[in-house]
Amino acid sequence: MKNIKERLTALRSFLKENSVGAFIIPSTDHHFGEYIQKHFSCREWLCGFTGSAGTLVVTEHKAALWTDSRYFVQARQELPGSEVELMKMRIAGTPSIPDWIKGEVSAGSFVGIDPMLFSKGEFETLSGELYPLKVKLTDDPFKEIWRDRPPVTFNKATLEDISVGGCDSKSKLKLLCQKLNIEKDFIYILCSCDDIAWLCNIRGTDIPFNPLVISYAAFTKEKIYLFACAEAFSKDEESVLRNSSVELYNYSEFPEFIKGFNQDYIRVAPIDKISVKIFNDAVSSGAAFFSDPVRGGVTASQKAVKNSVEIDGFRKAMLYDGVAWVKFWIYIEEELQKGAQNLTEELLAKKIGEIRAQHSEYKGESFSPIVAFGENGALPHYSPFGNGPVKILGDSFLLVDTGAHYPFGTTDTTRTFAIGNLTQEQRRDYTLVLKGMINLSMARFIKGTRGASLDFLARGAVSSAGKIYTHGTGHGIGHNLCVHEGPQSIRMEENPVPLEPGMVISNEPAIYEEGSYGIRIENTIMCKKWVENRYGEFYEFETLTLVPIDTTPVDKQLLGAEAIQWLNSYHSYLYEKLSELLNQREREWLSVKTLHID
Amino acid sequence: MKNIKERLTALRSFLKENSVGAFIIPSTDHHFGEYIQKHFSCREWLCGFTGSAGTLVVTEHKAALWTDSRYFVQARQELPGSEVELMKMRIAGTPSIPDWIKGEVSAGSFVGIDPMLFSKGEFETLSGELYPLKVKLTDDPFKEIWRDRPPVTFNKATLEDISVGGCDSKSKLKLLCQKLNIEKDFIYILCSCDDIAWLCNIRGTDIPFNPLVISYAAFTKEKIYLFACAEAFSKDEESVLRNSSVELYNYSEFPEFIKGFNQDYIRVAPIDKISVKIFNDAVSSGAAFFSDPVRGGVTASQKAVKNSVEIDGFRKAMLYDGVAWVKFWIYIEEELQKGAQNLTEELLAKKIGEIRAQHSEYKGESFSPIVAFGENGALPHYSPFGNGPVKILGDSFLLVDTGAHYPFGTTDTTRTFAIGNLTQEQRRDYTLVLKGMINLSMARFIKGTRGASLDFLARGAVSSAGKIYTHGTGHGIGHNLCVHEGPQSIRMEENPVPLEPGMVISNEPAIYEEGSYGIRIENTIMCKKWVENRYGEFYEFETLTLVPIDTTPVDKQLLGAEAIQWLNSYHSYLYEKLSELLNQREREWLSVKTLHID
Repeated sequence: MKNIKERLTALRSFLKENSVGAFIIPSTDHHFGEYIQKHFSCREWLCGFTGSAGTLVVTEHKAALWTDSRYFVQARQELPGSEVELMKMRIAGTPSIPDWIKGEVSAGSFVGIDPMLFSKGEFETLSGELYPLKVKLTDDPFKEIWRDRPPVTFNKATLEDISVGGCDSKSKLKLLCQKLNIEKDFIYILCSCDDIAWLCNIRGTDIPFNPLVISYAAFTKEKIYLFACAEAFSKDEESVLRNSSVELYNYSEFPEFIKGFNQDYIRVAPIDKISVKIFNDAVSSGAAFFSDPVRGGVTASQKAVKNSVEIDGFRKAMLYDGVAWVKFWIYIEEELQKGAQNLTEELLAKKIGEIRAQHSEYKGESFSPIVAFGENGALPHYSPFGNGPVKILGDSFLLVDTGAHYPFGTTDTTRTFAIGNLTQEQRRDYTLVLKGMINLSMARFIKGTRGASLDFLARGAVSSAGKIYTHGTGHGIGHNLCVHEGPQSIRMEENPVPLEPGMVISNEPAIYEEGSYGIRIENTIMCKKWVENRYGEFYEFETLTLVPIDTTPVDKQLLGAEAIQWLNSYHSYLYEKLSELLNQREREWLSVKTLHID
Repeated sequence: MKNIKERLTALRSFLKENSVGAFIIPSTDHHFGEYIQKHFSCREWLCGFTGSAGTLVVTEHKAALWTDSRYFVQARQELPGSEVELMKMRIAGTPSIPDWIKGEVSAGSFVGIDPMLFSKGEFETLSGELYPLKVKLTDDPFKEIWRDRPPVTFNKATLEDISVGGCDSKSKLKLLCQKLNIEKDFIYILCSCDDIAWLCNIRGTDIPFNPLVISYAAFTKEKIYLFACAEAFSKDEESVLRNSSVELYNYSEFPEFIKGFNQDYIRVAPIDKISVKIFNDAVSSGAAFFSDPVRGGVTASQKAVKNSVEIDGFRKAMLYDGVAWVKFWIYIEEELQKGAQNLTEELLAKKIGEIRAQHSEYKGESFSPIVAFGENGALPHYSPFGNGPVKILGDSFLLVDTGAHYPFGTTDTTRTFAIGNLTQEQRRDYTLVLKGMINLSMARFIKGTRGASLDFLARGAVSSAGKIYTHGTGHGIGHNLCVHEGPQSIRMEENPVPLEPGMVISNEPAIYEEGSYGIRIENTIMCKKWVENRYGEFYEFETLTLVPIDTTPVDKQLLGAEAIQWLNSYHSYLYEKLSELLNQREREWLSVKTLHID
């Protein structure tokens, strides 16, 4: 508490020195990733809030943190209320950040930001919303005031073999240039480490959960310029890269490189993925800038459409992951049968990782696992760590949401298990979540259909009971890359990106009954071609995930004949796929779990 | 044919005199309505194409007509191919109008438009797309060249009583000003006759099918200025209007009025509903303009949400209309049983009108009726008139889409009847269209949900069979006003308008098997409150239409238990509602038609 007071005071001195009336501290790093190194957790250091999403604003006399409904409880617990006010986003009456600042600072004030932490697009929007206040681009204040700040660390990187990635960088470059179709000379700027990892076929361990190399890149029609830590690649690897049109430079040289690059080359980037600082560097020589109009940029757009090698890799990853889930579920049942009094959420969260690690090709978790029993399941982004031991005891749901990276694919699966006796409402809610998940799985749709058109297939089953989930139904999933990946999504909110064959996406409707229980069932699905006829080309989904679904809570009449048929086929299919990878005992267990219901 | 050549030559002289290289002729009138008086059918006069949607472009040497898939066949038949090229909209390879013009005229040319026929919004978009060509605002060329052009006709108008409209103009004005919430003095400009009819509680017969008065209007915080034909209202009616804050002026005075209006008043309008000409008049004195950001404008937005008196009126209209449909269906069956060889589409199209006219309060058709047998049903906007007698003979579907105006409400209903024996594919398609219609009818959704989120409930059943319909699923419906009304819709395309209780909308999935048959089943539904709980406020639909649905083609297994239950309840409900308005014989017939299936 005292610490935070001192830290805020230090930042306020910086504000004064820089003549800014307010300072905005987001949750991101220089590459706009979802996970960040400790070095960039300035917001957490300053106010104590550890959630992954939250923006802090500090003025001379006040400080306030904006976060969304996932984190209201956590923020209330972690924030020193006397120093930092909690602003509940998307709740009636909560002012927007610009509106709040306008009410707090005097006319003519400047609002400070670190231009490495705001995209050009965010900066434009913010400037418009803050008007007539002006935005001032300052240095990173935490350089000075955060004395024991952890440094940025760079680890050894690896090259992704074409046998798992399916396409070399040279071919990817060619494809991107074709899609861009820009006649003049241009240099395309990439700041997102996952776009760079895909383009250059590199992977790393610089970022928690995301197998990324902290890097910048740029490409012209001729080659790719990669800026990473000098020690990340061996000489041999450097030459492999060079053979695939990737030239390696030192990470720190990027700003000077982009400043000094031939100014006859147009600079191109998606404005939501280039920082204000890099943007300003890029055009400082007077070069023209062209904003890539494709949502998320052409690289992300191409990355989202998995090639056949990547798709086969996903299928393989799902096999290994399915086996791990079977062993995990058997473990839970056996422990519960023993009457294990010490079975906790945290223990289970570690257990699934240990089971996966029995496979030699397992690389690690694709996100921090969620294991939530009873009322904890009602917090969509609950963490089983650091709450003291929460036992799996009594009658309720156990919600487990975990994922893994393999060199050939990434998984993301949620299952909700019935523990003990359930109420009628719990059985109904479970059935509706499952029904929604299945409805979306069965969709068949014409080419050009957007995720937003399909969202209600899953959401509608839940809202038929007067309940909702406030998150999206589906997010894109990377291939041994980020578990949350754009540009496609299946959400209520409009997203103009049509679903295309090869896009991998989650399917995860849910119900969160606050203070009581949570239910989420999540499969990974892939868009693929179905038929082509006089009406056009139609797509459907292939369910990639191979993990049995608990049928004990299902209300068969409510689920309905069509969904039951889907569920039975799914269970038959996954039994067939997994059984040969299981021992006799596991196989028998799975044959019971995948029994048809009717 | 020769006529058209001469007419095009006359227009080309106008082009030359006005130094424009191309001229664009849309399908609309000065008020951007869906139906227009003959006076405004310049495009038809010029090229022969009678469809309701189509844009003609004429250059020195060429002429081309852009229309959508509904009209490809018709346009091919009606256009003199040698003189006017058919451009198929939304078909790969068809250039956009601006792109085509750019390829046809020399650099530096002007492109002429009649500024009364383009909205300010359309003009802005067009100007951007035509760049570097410039748009030139000319006079109406048809004033000169169309010698026997029918004049604009103005008929007697009527006042809508508060007992059917539910809200007087004074209260509507107050509501609009509250919604607009503009501090400064303003004058809001209305060019859409349906917005004006709603605001001023007036109805007319100036436009086919739409009960409108050709008029302009404007309102300030104090009063409404209505510009209509001087003879449209009696002195008594004028004084009734004045008592409700509506001041009457002559139609032709509007341009001068808006030019001369106190220039301290900001001009306000939705830019898609004010013509370039009126916009230019409005700001010619130097007054500021504020574009109403609400989709369709605040008046349309308020008009779309029906009040309780209007809703009761809709329910009453559906009763009367349901009775007419029962008598109509009985008539068809009896004629077919007689083996009537002379039962034609046209005869049936007239018959439904005659039956409705037996009710003293029937005002007329809300659109031109569609009665389509067999392959004709595959044309979504088919007209049974002027094709020669098409007999209802053989095995296929008979598709009937008709609607009526009553003083208290407007109807729009489609039913598809099985005639003779159907194929397996026809039965499946019929069942899927019905299933889609029912899926949407059963939706329950959280406040804030947009129509685009719900569209796939109806569309998905159809696309599950690898078929599509290319039109929207639902359009708003006016209250004794236009049968197609915004701003809400249920379509694949994004529309940011959320559905609100009181909004009335159609629900009309379909399948069109070209050259073979068409199926469409359309009910009118209304959004209303369902429940409010800790998750928020939920809405559902009330089905307003009370017309039995042919159950003979239904494949029960494919329809599914939930939809069967809905259908049975619907039939029970409508039997209960309609039976007391029927005679003994009709009642018995209806009891058979509404028998539960299972």
